[in-house]
Amino acid sequence: MLSPIELIIKKRTGKELSSYELDFLVNSYIDNKLPDYQMAAFLMAVFFQGMNDREIQYLTEAYIQSGNKYFFDKQTVDKHSTGGIGDKVSLMLAPIVAECGAYIPMISGRGLGHTGGTLDKLESIKGFKTDLSQEEFRNTVETVGFSIISQSNELVPADKKIYALRDVSGTVESLPLITASILSKKIAEGAKNLVIDLKVGTGAFISNIDQGNELGRLLKSTSEALGQKTEIVLSNMNSPLGYYVGNGVEVYEAIQYLKGKKIPDLDELTKHLAVKMLILSKNFDSEQEAKRNIDKAITSGKALERFARFIKAQGGDDKVCEKPQLLPQAKYILPIKAKETGWVRSIDGRNIGYSLMHIDSGRKNLDSIIDHSTGIKIKPKVGDYINKNDIIGKVFCNNKEKGTQTANIVTSSYFISENKVSLEKIILKNHRGEHENNNFNQ
Amino acid sequence: MLSPIELIIKKRTGKELSSYELDFLVNSYIDNKLPDYQMAAFLMAVFFQGMNDREIQYLTEAYIQSGNKYFFDKQTVDKHSTGGIGDKVSLMLAPIVAECGAYIPMISGRGLGHTGGTLDKLESIKGFKTDLSQEEFRNTVETVGFSIISQSNELVPADKKIYALRDVSGTVESLPLITASILSKKIAEGAKNLVIDLKVGTGAFISNIDQGNELGRLLKSTSEALGQKTEIVLSNMNSPLGYYVGNGVEVYEAIQYLKGKKIPDLDELTKHLAVKMLILSKNFDSEQEAKRNIDKAITSGKALERFARFIKAQGGDDKVCEKPQLLPQAKYILPIKAKETGWVRSIDGRNIGYSLMHIDSGRKNLDSIIDHSTGIKIKPKVGDYINKNDIIGKVFCNNKEKGTQTANIVTSSYFISENKVSLEKIILKNHRGEHENNNFNQ
Repeated sequence: MLSPIELIIKKRTGKELSSYELDFLVNSYIDNKLPDYQMAAFLMAVFFQGMNDREIQYLTEAYIQSGNKYFFDKQTVDKHSTGGIGDKVSLMLAPIVAECGAYIPMISGRGLGHTGGTLDKLESIKGFKTDLSQEEFRNTVETVGFSIISQSNELVPADKKIYALRDVSGTVESLPLITASILSKKIAEGAKNLVIDLKVGTGAFISNIDQGNELGRLLKSTSEALGQKTEIVLSNMNSPLGYYVGNGVEVYEAIQYLKGKKIPDLDELTKHLAVKMLILSKNFDSEQEAKRNIDKAITSGKALERFARFIKAQGGDDKVCEKPQLLPQAKYILPIKAKETGWVRSIDGRNIGYSLMHIDSGRKNLDSIIDHSTGIKIKPKVGDYINKNDIIGKVFCNNKEKGTQTANIVTSSYFISENKVSLEKIILKNHRGEHENNNFNQ
Repeated sequence: MLSPIELIIKKRTGKELSSYELDFLVNSYIDNKLPDYQMAAFLMAVFFQGMNDREIQYLTEAYIQSGNKYFFDKQTVDKHSTGGIGDKVSLMLAPIVAECGAYIPMISGRGLGHTGGTLDKLESIKGFKTDLSQEEFRNTVETVGFSIISQSNELVPADKKIYALRDVSGTVESLPLITASILSKKIAEGAKNLVIDLKVGTGAFISNIDQGNELGRLLKSTSEALGQKTEIVLSNMNSPLGYYVGNGVEVYEAIQYLKGKKIPDLDELTKHLAVKMLILSKNFDSEQEAKRNIDKAITSGKALERFARFIKAQGGDDKVCEKPQLLPQAKYILPIKAKETGWVRSIDGRNIGYSLMHIDSGRKNLDSIIDHSTGIKIKPKVGDYINKNDIIGKVFCNNKEKGTQTANIVTSSYFISENKVSLEKIILKNHRGEHENNNFNQ
């Protein structure tokens, strides 16, 4: 019989835990035999001592084995983003990649703190359901090509319980625990291939590229050890993605993109990820061929059509694709002004993310209720030139006072330089080690 | 309103917590507002990040303020030992020092794991009570000169609750937490002066002298910052203290000592500590004068007489001082034999401590029931010469099979060298920096 105290002390003193020992801790915890305080002490010891690759793999396996595991008789592929500001990429990427022939069984999350969540965005659409049964999920993936749902109690319950404890015990920011949490869901959902969009910058929880590379390495080696083919993409989160941040407004922007609107950063990132996914899933042999098909999926309107079928399959009002005014509309639109003249040197994306809590676009805690009609639109990115008092964006809100708070925070989140600042690239470095931008050691 | 999660993360990232923040954590915890899992995560973060001197002082104050604080209108002095094997020093020291004119209000503890507890030893005496009321405690101290009791719920409840959590969350071995735990009780009990017997060696939880010096420094600076005069004594715990280890057998040995029996290590340590106490409490100006009075207290039989008065005052059968056979007697006495010929190079005191659990002299956990009649007697110390199959000691037990297990473990706890090993001194180094033995970097 293993002793939880001895295992805590073993990790505390930096020793390696075996597969058997990690299984014991995870299983005892979900069976309510290991009390919260022992798991919390263990998680804090992991925060300080880390875990080696073997331990991370065993922990991820223990998470997966705590619940069901789905299997699809198709070439499945998924994308995971580590979370950023204005990241509505899944909404565009999934219908495009599905239109190109791959299948995407996507378990997604809700927003917390400064980052938004794909499920919250989708719930801006009237009637849209994210809690499908296993059968509904399977049918949607097989008929529409993709489905985006929330984590059920049957899927990786260990991660659900341990994540909730990490959130209240100050143990969220641990790379081994982050790795196990991400991959257990992405493997249990049935994705055979996975592209991870690892965000680095002021609006991400990882702010320097070394940490990004380390997390990328852990994610790739763990995922592949567990039989999933994986590609890591490091992307820039020094400016919010696209122009809109919120929930309904991000669905609006995604639909505009699928209708052919050019949004440079979103376009570059979405297509880059789509190519990686389609090569991994073996739908195409060459990047050129993949790109051609991706472009065709958008220009033909087929990707948007598929997005509408997806909305309908999950109970939502698909007319929203033709009439964006069916999305929740805020009462007021307030201007956001520039405070200085010059080049945008940096944008405090984290601050902008938190500013959205004032107008209920973001969650303070798990019980917060989201207002799907609110949000912001902002145009300037790092490297753009702006003039004092220029209108650089707008706030969509239902309370003018709170909206003004948000506008002021956004204004003060822009840091302006008198000297020219170069524009930043969106793709930073992929797992093959290609540096495409090295302006990132902050 | 402070956020517990933010305070956990503040400590986790190595920042200093304020007095207000530490008070908040301690008070919320004893009011059951802070859950165990948050306190456990905090304690593990303290284990890794430590605390600076100010934080340790604030934490100790927060502990003290969680309960009552006693005050005596006398020159009070106490001794604390960090715990060792065969450490019955309090039983001899308290009556001697009281006989020399000081007052000792001693809150003591029970044994756990490999170390014994003074309260368990005293409870070998028929009728002896350790849970005196505040009034009984005060009266005993004022009339007999000393009293030894257990920690009540009114005294430092924060330490009681946090210690129990540390025990099950793998966070016992943290010098700042050890410091706050020891000193909060020794200050709240009303001791104006304190001598700390800091054990270093194979039978102590501190095995190297650097760690001993660091804990000594923390204890002295914290105690003095809180107005208590303090002297640190580092003492050798590479051999068990005296010849007897157990409960009733240690009371027997203490009584023999008070009757004038010469037991070199016990004698040296007891007198060294007694001198320090009597100088601190200003009962004597010079060490010579203190020593003279200590010797007189023993040779005159007055210290033993005082020990008997103490036993009677706390409800025990004081006839035990004249008739030691009134102490609980074990059914069987088994021999312990030497396995090799040579000089004793080291003794695994921790192992010997744990061996006593087989015959119920020691506690596996807080619910274990102690058998007061059992124990061992062992003669050879580090540096002594022994011959294979020599009888080096005996086991007092009520079950021959379990007693044999204990005997075998004791035998195998002696490591023998073919080369001469020098005898070790009992006093290692006091707070003034006098090295009296430097054979200690293990």
